[in-house]
Amino acid sequence: MFGAIEAGGSKFVCGVGNRPEDVKTIQIPTTSPEATTAGAIGFLQKYAGGQLQAVGIGSFGPIDLHRDSPTFGHITTTPKAGWQNYDLAGAVRDALHVPVGFDTDVNAAALGEARWGAAQGLSDFIYLTIGTGIGGGAMVYGRVVHGLVHPEMGHIRVPHDLARDPFPGCCPFHGDCLERLASGPAMQARWGMPAQDLPGDHPGWALEAHYLALALMNWVCTLSPQRVLLGGGVMQHAPLFEMIRQELARLLHGYIRAGELTERLDQYVIPPQLGDRAGVLGALVLAEQAYTLGGRSENR
Amino acid sequence: MFGAIEAGGSKFVCGVGNRPEDVKTIQIPTTSPEATTAGAIGFLQKYAGGQLQAVGIGSFGPIDLHRDSPTFGHITTTPKAGWQNYDLAGAVRDALHVPVGFDTDVNAAALGEARWGAAQGLSDFIYLTIGTGIGGGAMVYGRVVHGLVHPEMGHIRVPHDLARDPFPGCCPFHGDCLERLASGPAMQARWGMPAQDLPGDHPGWALEAHYLALALMNWVCTLSPQRVLLGGGVMQHAPLFEMIRQELARLLHGYIRAGELTERLDQYVIPPQLGDRAGVLGALVLAEQAYTLGGRSENR
Repeated sequence: MFGAIEAGGSKFVCGVGNRPEDVKTIQIPTTSPEATTAGAIGFLQKYAGGQLQAVGIGSFGPIDLHRDSPTFGHITTTPKAGWQNYDLAGAVRDALHVPVGFDTDVNAAALGEARWGAAQGLSDFIYLTIGTGIGGGAMVYGRVVHGLVHPEMGHIRVPHDLARDPFPGCCPFHGDCLERLASGPAMQARWGMPAQDLPGDHPGWALEAHYLALALMNWVCTLSPQRVLLGGGVMQHAPLFEMIRQELARLLHGYIRAGELTERLDQYVIPPQLGDRAGVLGALVLAEQAYTLGGRSENR
Repeated sequence: MFGAIEAGGSKFVCGVGNRPEDVKTIQIPTTSPEATTAGAIGFLQKYAGGQLQAVGIGSFGPIDLHRDSPTFGHITTTPKAGWQNYDLAGAVRDALHVPVGFDTDVNAAALGEARWGAAQGLSDFIYLTIGTGIGGGAMVYGRVVHGLVHPEMGHIRVPHDLARDPFPGCCPFHGDCLERLASGPAMQARWGMPAQDLPGDHPGWALEAHYLALALMNWVCTLSPQRVLLGGGVMQHAPLFEMIRQELARLLHGYIRAGELTERLDQYVIPPQLGDRAGVLGALVLAEQAYTLGGRSENR
């Protein structure tokens, strides 16, 4: 039996089980590192007890994924108060004495979608969440990308249409990076109401589709994914998918000749199938990987 | 003994040998597909003869890299007259009867730098060429990225500073994509002289550094490479490296905490070590891979 923790900035989703059909989950509000982690550990002990074989954690970040680093398993430079340099993986391992898999929340979600969701059978795809923030996980040749640190896809820069959109962006680090042009809070700041309250014919949706399509174009040109999954709160506005597809087709302008991009965009830019369970289910995959590798996991 | 072909839009560089120290190369102007390929084949036959074990080709594109595709090994939708849908790998294989490895010119260059150049020992890095066009190859977990088609990094979109740079860009497909803002021809069109003639204190260099740093920022946020190699004609202006590093540091603003990005950018953004031989030497690596796999190579 595996344990799963999707460690988010506002809540932890914890699960026990092996697959989508049998996983039991709870949610814990994210308060202090110690209290929140203790809650997660208590849940895993209660429902898995002595049967727990490994735990997977998909965490908000930035985090340290490098096994040979002294701060492996830590949340590092997050702006979230109290969580800087917190050894999340270590706390779980020390309490439960099982192998712990550790990766970003979006990489975990990508792993979940690859195993049970909308990316089954694909070796190369990206999973994005457009919500409170913008984050992305990329799978290349069947492995989620880590690299030097890990991707921070929400912080790419795309052209900011200042004539149409004088909103200045508000990222404390990067001004008008993608996240500060197209996240849920950016939409709310720009239009004075939450994204879900914007009428369907509001020009904010076309602008949102424009920015997200610019970002997708950059990722298509960089990673050449076989599919793009778009999740998160902003994507709950279902008509946004078709608007993004049309704008992406306009921007690509037929340059990359692949049926997926020219004829079948309706199957190329799609929602995740696991919905808001992608992260916690992906953390189960991380647990399984950690178990298989017997604690030597590189969580890949 | 291996054969190597770097198939470029203006010239083919052909080589015979096994490693940088012993490779013999020639250049053939790119004319018609048939004449150019015949020239390359003739060179390989003359200098390797019966000892030729495999050939590697790093080609301009777009190309078809999918072994299971009926057009595998073809140059596909290039704007270069006469070369559309040309079966380059097939022509070489049919003439020489040896396994043929096939990849993009920039992926080949990345493989060459990984084996013998500035990326030795790295699993994740990107190689970029900034010249007549802008192209990039990415290595992730030790394999060059293919994905759905292959990356077309030069076509990403970055913020176009219209106040500072009213130049409209000239890409027939994408208007002001990176290539049309920052390639050699873009610099020449904007400033009325070739890049190599711009004085060192010309504001064109700061603008070039700005655009390339925006692009690097996007790739750092997407792929988290361990290093970035910048080659091509524009990068022959050596002071551009330090300008790009400073601009990249300014744009990243310390968000990604890694010594490589905050303290050691002078070792992070660097030139390729193999210079203009990266492509043909990388094609030798492709040949070796094809030989090892006995013609079943996926050129990875």
